[in-house]
Amino acid sequence: MEFLVNIEVEWPPEGDPDELARITAAERVRADELVREGRIRRLWRIPGRRANWGIWEAPDATELHAAIASLPFFPWLSVEVYPLARHPSDPAAQSATSEEAQQP
Amino acid sequence: MEFLVNIEVEWPPEGDPDELARITAAERVRADELVREGRIRRLWRIPGRRANWGIWEAPDATELHAAIASLPFFPWLSVEVYPLARHPSDPAAQSATSEEAQQP
Amino acid sequence: MEFLVNIEVEWPPEGDPDELARITAAERVRADELVREGRIRRLWRIPGRRANWGIWEAPDATELHAAIASLPFFPWLSVEVYPLARHPSDPAAQSATSEEAQQP
Amino acid sequence: MEFLVNIEVEWPPEGDPDELARITAAERVRADELVREGRIRRLWRIPGRRANWGIWEAPDATELHAAIASLPFFPWLSVEVYPLARHPSDPAAQSATSEEAQQP
Amino acid sequence: MEFLVNIEVEWPPEGDPDELARITAAERVRADELVREGRIRRLWRIPGRRANWGIWEAPDATELHAAIASLPFFPWLSVEVYPLARHPSDPAAQSATSEEAQQP
Amino acid sequence: MEFLVNIEVEWPPEGDPDELARITAAERVRADELVREGRIRRLWRIPGRRANWGIWEAPDATELHAAIASLPFFPWLSVEVYPLARHPSDPAAQSATSEEAQQP
Amino acid sequence: MEFLVNIEVEWPPEGDPDELARITAAERVRADELVREGRIRRLWRIPGRRANWGIWEAPDATELHAAIASLPFFPWLSVEVYPLARHPSDPAAQSATSEEAQQP
Amino acid sequence: MEFLVNIEVEWPPEGDPDELARITAAERVRADELVREGRIRRLWRIPGRRANWGIWEAPDATELHAAIASLPFFPWLSVEVYPLARHPSDPAAQSATSEEAQQP
Amino acid sequence: MEFLVNIEVEWPPEGDPDELARITAAERVRADELVREGRIRRLWRIPGRRANWGIWEAPDATELHAAIASLPFFPWLSVEVYPLARHPSDPAAQSATSEEAQQP
Amino acid sequence: MEFLVNIEVEWPPEGDPDELARITAAERVRADELVREGRIRRLWRIPGRRANWGIWEAPDATELHAAIASLPFFPWLSVEVYPLARHPSDPAAQSATSEEAQQP
Repeated sequence: MEFLVNIEVEWPPEGDPDELARITAAERVRADELVREGRIRRLWRIPGRRANWGIWEAPDATELHAAIASLPFFPWLSVEVYPLARHPSDPAAQSATSEEAQQP
Repeated sequence: MEFLVNIEVEWPPEGDPDELARITAAERVRADELVREGRIRRLWRIPGRRANWGIWEAPDATELHAAIASLPFFPWLSVEVYPLARHPSDPAAQSATSEEAQQP
Repeated sequence: MEFLVNIEVEWPPEGDPDELARITAAERVRADELVREGRIRRLWRIPGRRANWGIWEAPDATELHAAIASLPFFPWLSVEVYPLARHPSDPAAQSATSEEAQQP
Repeated sequence: MEFLVNIEVEWPPEGDPDELARITAAERVRADELVREGRIRRLWRIPGRRANWGIWEAPDATELHAAIASLPFFPWLSVEVYPLARHPSDPAAQSATSEEAQQP
Repeated sequence: MEFLVNIEVEWPPEGDPDELARITAAERVRADELVREGRIRRLWRIPGRRANWGIWEAPDATELHAAIASLPFFPWLSVEVYPLARHPSDPAAQSATSEEAQQP
Repeated sequence: MEFLVNIEVEWPPEGDPDELARITAAERVRADELVREGRIRRLWRIPGRRANWGIWEAPDATELHAAIASLPFFPWLSVEVYPLARHPSDPAAQSATSEEAQQP
Repeated sequence: MEFLVNIEVEWPPEGDPDELARITAAERVRADELVREGRIRRLWRIPGRRANWGIWEAPDATELHAAIASLPFFPWLSVEVYPLARHPSDPAAQSATSEEAQQP
Repeated sequence: MEFLVNIEVEWPPEGDPDELARITAAERVRADELVREGRIRRLWRIPGRRANWGIWEAPDATELHAAIASLPFFPWLSVEVYPLARHPSDPAAQSATSEEAQQP
Repeated sequence: MEFLVNIEVEWPPEGDPDELARITAAERVRADELVREGRIRRLWRIPGRRANWGIWEAPDATELHAAIASLPFFPWLSVEVYPLARHPSDPAAQSATSEEAQQP
Repeated sequence: MEFLVNIEVEWPPEGDPDELARITAAERVRADELVREGRIRRLWRIPGRRANWGIWEAPDATELHAAIASLPFFPWLSVEVYPLARHPSDPAAQSATSEEAQQP
């Protein structure tokens, strides 16, 4: 199941720059792992903000929470999750369907 | 450039069912064209609502507007557009980059 | 997977009372079916409103949408869906866990 | 009487990790007590957040407040309470009714 | 248990004046009954609006809903209910307590 | 003139417990004075929050402000004031009217 | 006592132009009466809207409501009332005070 | 003085298409006049909506209101006006200043 | 041109009382100057809050900003400005007009 | 492509005045560079606030983000970006079109 996830990073401007650099690097590593595990499908910056929109995939909200909570920035995140249902005109759904249709 | 687009269909419950069926069919056709033209990249239903989230792609907001306004349901739509910037951990961006990196 | 669902019924006060009675009866039948199918787990009226909070269960948001859209009042509904993740202190989760723990 | 309760934990990211661990453990103990006392009927994590939705039961709002205020995290909580009324299609209400109906 | 109730009357300005007069009269009668039954404890107009704030009393939200839904204007009402808990400095609670204290 | 007053106490969770105890005690004393002076007519806790709803009475908003600002917690309060107008079905107004009507 | 009043006129664009003209003329007459009675102290259009901000004066919210409800447009109005308290730096308050100070 | 103006056109989807075409044409003519009169400085469509953001210029809010109210679509418009103050880094302000600085 | 201005003072409850007293005194002096300069026309406290509503007058938003930014509390202020247009029923506008009408 | 950008500067009132002066000066320099690079087209102060509205131009949201994130105040900024589409009545669009029309 896919989820649309809005993440705002509420790092204090007066925060320690070294800790910020360290967590940012760890976040990058963890995000890449979540990409490889298929949890993060797409990710975009929200222009002008320390924030992003993402398409996440997980069996259910429990595993989605575990994935988000594994981010090193988690204590500083404000997160909104929107569950997504399949749409008949979704290109990904269509190609999946037509692939199935072409199965012998 | 990609955009996250939230569309609510405000069709009146008392609306003519025949017109609804006709516009729904035309909407499906037009949505499929927008998929083939590469304007609509992904599309999901918002569960419980006549509404959807979509990832749209267009050179700029002017062409995005033209694409959305071409939908037969446009007079009944309430639409919010969120511009999207590239994120360094986006899987799509990464594969694009690595493809470029592999170019001779 | 469980979902918290908020449903507001936006039936117009000037609506036809016979149609309202007919749809209300059909809604009751369909709600009872959804209860028997295990889609609706709990349902409460929001005091003072034609509205309810419910705990719904479905494999994913796509099937949840199909269940909600099957309600006869669907064209008049304004629906918000909140995905739910397991909480370690949830009584239901605990009894499930202890049952599993007692399995031979 | 049942209540739907939304709880957000506003623990500061810079808070003392030892105090956080200590309060988290105490919270778990107190939550389990409230479960055993029948105050907490169901509890779910809100995915991506330090937050939960719960179904609480108490004779009235005064005792509900006492129960919530007994949580060790109470000073850091932002809480919204929604009173719940019985719905004729609620599975729990139905089984209660049919049990009553079967009484000799 | 007491509840704070906010009621907005959404009667359409183009509504039939005779029906408005008839329902207004019936509403007055029903409100007076709810006062006599002890359901409505206090009632104030919100200045400038067809709206009121009220202190209602009912054993639980189910009976509160039944009382509100019995108002002839109910189909045109938008209602918000806020549950109320006892406060140690409430004059009414204090006099109740001191009366109890004076009991032999 | 009566006012509906919503008060949220924004005391920081990390605040000094001794100061909190001292101000809480002083608040209790001052609230009781305001009750005796007829400024506070009713007071309820909002369940789950350090907050209350109150019915206050004052000749005008200037004296209401003076009363609220006299609370020891005032620097930590977030306050919303709603002016109240008489409602013809208010039990208090009715008894006042009938008393007047019974005057010789 | 003074009140800040925000009034939005929700006249339907499809409304009868003759009725609109008639009510607009009657509104003008009534507004001028309220000015002469000292109820309306100042009145400004909100640019771009059929709406206004006003400074109203009335002994209390009950008489303020009576004044607003006497406007011919009342059934089409959405009104918000903000009670106002005296400010020590208010020019009107200062001149009143200095006039008093000059009293023999 | 400049103003940022947000205009939403709330034309009903069921409105008469001929009237819509007629008003749209008249709106275009009036907008062009407002451009020539220097009232409208810039105008952009909000993608996906029947709405626009504009930079308007007028001596004050009274004349701004007159300009907006002169639009044929005015009865169907929902308008928000944001007053604008000069910013020292504004390119237009800078070129104006440097032109003045170059005056003999 | 007149503006309606809403000012909230966000002074931290833990702030230094001596600095608060000093800035409050300076604010009073500066407010009185703005009154004498004709910038502040009316000023009211918002009951229950460290906040005020004011009617300000300035040639344009640039000079209004300069006036507000000159307040000693400016770094702690949250300010909303609403531009005001003349209303034909405004008492002040009417007396101005009638004075003009009486000019020879 | 043009964007409307709303920027609020959330500098803490208790912040170091020297650092504020230093960052303000650097911000001015960077803003002037962004003006010269054609990123910032117009910029206005929001009266009464440490905030501004701007018209920015960038090939896409990615480069817009890079430009905004290059501002020295970026860690203290709260930014909202609104994408802009061409409007047929925009004076700038019209002059561009007529220039094109005059091309031989």
